[in-house]
Amino acid sequence: MAETVFTKILAGEIPCHRLYEDDEVLSFLDIGPLSRGHALVIPKEPAETLDALSDEAAAAVGRVLPRIARAVCAAVGVKDYNVLQNNGRAAHQFVDHVHFHIIPKPADGGGLSMSWDVSELDHEDGAALAKDVAARLEA
Amino acid sequence: MAETVFTKILAGEIPCHRLYEDDEVLSFLDIGPLSRGHALVIPKEPAETLDALSDEAAAAVGRVLPRIARAVCAAVGVKDYNVLQNNGRAAHQFVDHVHFHIIPKPADGGGLSMSWDVSELDHEDGAALAKDVAARLEA
Repeated sequence: MAETVFTKILAGEIPCHRLYEDDEVLSFLDIGPLSRGHALVIPKEPAETLDALSDEAAAAVGRVLPRIARAVCAAVGVKDYNVLQNNGRAAHQFVDHVHFHIIPKPADGGGLSMSWDVSELDHEDGAALAKDVAARLEA
Repeated sequence: MAETVFTKILAGEIPCHRLYEDDEVLSFLDIGPLSRGHALVIPKEPAETLDALSDEAAAAVGRVLPRIARAVCAAVGVKDYNVLQNNGRAAHQFVDHVHFHIIPKPADGGGLSMSWDVSELDHEDGAALAKDVAARLEA
């Protein structure tokens, strides 16, 4: 895996506004925030995308998301927020080290803006697809 | 916590296209997909928002995200994807039971569309804010 700005932060070569750290996880403020309090939570284990991360590292990140979200929201005085984790350039990932965004959604604007163009599930295709995915998970 | 469509799915009162289940987590296809393979991963523990979820349940969900993402992406033949978890109406949450979306981002369009209107972090405010958040996390 190539060195990234996040591996440099983990190595202490680049400073960050640190929020939280344990043996497996580091959290700090995003320097290009979508809203005040926009935080990143990253595993110390190197992995470019979530699918390449170990179960243990993913569990360690998952475990701290509620408490970091509570602290960030309390500090900025915002109740609503999005947690977002992007994988691949088409999905808006620009640092190739797994990171979860915690993005407060203030009532006065800012935060994550999405368009939500849903389709209706084709249940015949859905049943076949679910069977395929479930089989891959059991394999 | 009020009953939701997800508590009804968990109780077996509403069917779903199930992808994965263990003692703490259920995953199934979203019936209003943003792209083919759009999956939901929910804790069995009832909590409206992520900040209200126990560490253990959050870890259990985190643990299975990589493997479910791998299986979904393999099944639909897409490499890039977003993981999204919304909290509160302003943040686009419409079912009041914690859920993580896994949304494939196919090259031919579809998936999650975001506008990413970043600002530049005010480092003086950032330092004070990080100190505040870190203190709340230590408390």
